[in-house]
Amino acid sequence: MKLYGAPMPAPNPRRVRMFLVEKGIDLPETRIDMIKREHKSEEFRAKNSLGQIPTLELDDGEAISETVAICRYFEEIKPEPSLFGRTAIEKARVDMWVRRMEFVLMTPVGNYWRHFHPYTAALLTQYKDFGESNIQAYANAQKWLDRELETKPFIAGEAYSMADICAQSTVDFATWIGLPIDPEHKNLTAWHARVSARPSASA
Amino acid sequence: MKLYGAPMPAPNPRRVRMFLVEKGIDLPETRIDMIKREHKSEEFRAKNSLGQIPTLELDDGEAISETVAICRYFEEIKPEPSLFGRTAIEKARVDMWVRRMEFVLMTPVGNYWRHFHPYTAALLTQYKDFGESNIQAYANAQKWLDRELETKPFIAGEAYSMADICAQSTVDFATWIGLPIDPEHKNLTAWHARVSARPSASA
Repeated sequence: MKLYGAPMPAPNPRRVRMFLVEKGIDLPETRIDMIKREHKSEEFRAKNSLGQIPTLELDDGEAISETVAICRYFEEIKPEPSLFGRTAIEKARVDMWVRRMEFVLMTPVGNYWRHFHPYTAALLTQYKDFGESNIQAYANAQKWLDRELETKPFIAGEAYSMADICAQSTVDFATWIGLPIDPEHKNLTAWHARVSARPSASA
Repeated sequence: MKLYGAPMPAPNPRRVRMFLVEKGIDLPETRIDMIKREHKSEEFRAKNSLGQIPTLELDDGEAISETVAICRYFEEIKPEPSLFGRTAIEKARVDMWVRRMEFVLMTPVGNYWRHFHPYTAALLTQYKDFGESNIQAYANAQKWLDRELETKPFIAGEAYSMADICAQSTVDFATWIGLPIDPEHKNLTAWHARVSARPSASA
């Protein structure tokens, strides 16, 4: 098995690295040089036609892409500790929260990065007004999540899960690009301290 | 169990309806009046704090939202016919394609609808330049998907899956809002005819 990725703070490859630490799976990342655009090369596109990382290449040559799908594969081959839930309701709950973290939390951060941040301005066409509007969308998402965390220690409930990995990598990336956690959000801040104390945080 | 939804062509509630037909599960939809903004009412927000449909309310009162999480719950309680895959690699493959359909195919359609379509212009602040740019993004996505379908009958491979439901509901919604399939894309067109011939297509 070969895992193609890139160093942090890119959130998607980091999610897989964090997941592997939580699972106790030792699989070093094969680094893709994104500056040299290796992920857009013909050779890499044969593994992932979208030219994206992370991508997991299995021993028979089949390649799986999409962060959560890759992590789900590891969950299947090594079920414990469970990060996607064990029962029907646990699985549905974790999947719901993974998706909420992606659609509600990560989407505005991604849009801000893609359409407003100076780093990407040099690389791609930006729609700045739209990009800027995502600052408020992310603030709203933080406020909502802070309230949700009032009654539970982790994103999907009592147990740490893939949803925490998705949320933590998003929040850390957002901080890095200039959108920190609003310190008024006590529950969100406490949750972030809780997940940041885990060994996976340094992945 | 109570399934909250709304009539087509809204793609997310339709996905759950299609999934239930494919599974042979008889669960009528409890219709939410979106014009009256029932989904944003305090009563409904107690079930889903984001005020979104579909939402599945279980007999113990717990509510699951997010289309794919709801379908995954049904897959767990009634595994056959499998729509998310049976083995580790099948599950990873389906999840990868579900996500690709959401992120690559649905995102530009959703952005176009949200930021360019006259219907939403009356309801929300639009960033029209950004919205319009998604026409090209969706055209690129169609082209990519057409090529991917050159060698397989269904989105995730040989078997019909949740990824087909996600793709079909996206393509049909896109057509409805003015972004039809480019007839030059023969594989995509043939795939669409194939999935449209299934009983679930009328859900």
